[in-house]
Amino acid sequence: MSISHIEHIGIAVKSLENSIPFYEKVLGLKCYNIEEVRDQKVRTAFFMVGQTKIELLESTDPEGPIGKFIEKKGEGIHHIAFAVKGIEDQLKRMEEQGIMLIDKAPRKGAEGLDIAFLHPKSTLGVLTELCEDKNK
Amino acid sequence: MSISHIEHIGIAVKSLENSIPFYEKVLGLKCYNIEEVRDQKVRTAFFMVGQTKIELLESTDPEGPIGKFIEKKGEGIHHIAFAVKGIEDQLKRMEEQGIMLIDKAPRKGAEGLDIAFLHPKSTLGVLTELCEDKNK
Repeated sequence: MSISHIEHIGIAVKSLENSIPFYEKVLGLKCYNIEEVRDQKVRTAFFMVGQTKIELLESTDPEGPIGKFIEKKGEGIHHIAFAVKGIEDQLKRMEEQGIMLIDKAPRKGAEGLDIAFLHPKSTLGVLTELCEDKNK
Repeated sequence: MSISHIEHIGIAVKSLENSIPFYEKVLGLKCYNIEEVRDQKVRTAFFMVGQTKIELLESTDPEGPIGKFIEKKGEGIHHIAFAVKGIEDQLKRMEEQGIMLIDKAPRKGAEGLDIAFLHPKSTLGVLTELCEDKNK
């Protein structure tokens, strides 16, 4: 396995507009991009902290994954994403190790990355994402 | 504010022994230290991922914060810790900005860091820790 760093931490929020001021004014981070990911029914706001992005996730649909998460658990940390090389091979190896995959093959996520989620039942309750930037 | 990076991500687990194999054998990380923090009623296992540590937290007391967290929410991500400079001044400024502090002054955490928690009611549901390594 070749995880180089934590690519991002996804945080579910009710409203980007109400949340960005905390990250900017209290924590002193800078929102450098806001993007809609229709496939995942979210709008995301990005902040860089060292090597890692904070990705705030606002639901655009109550039936989407973030809408359901907030309804069930409230606002809070939603997932961790690890930067890997060779995402297809990693998914195959993990499946052979008995890990339940949400995505058996990578799909396109925010910022053009190839992403895939592992099921939290196989990852000690932590929704875990692998991602690879094939342009790097 | 001067957050340099995410110092660690704290993850509540029922058992270090049952959890370390996932991080080592599936994710390919290396557990480099196990430490008991009596003050917080936890045993912690550390893994380095780029700049950031994964800190697995096993409760040593059902009445401690991790024991209560797992009882209420199950295993999962517990908190994010940001590395800062001048932690006392940062806490003072945040309190003046209306942020609820769990620790009004820093205390000693794992690995000898000065740490303080902000209340998740003020941080959009994310239990947020500041930490400073004064030996650096």
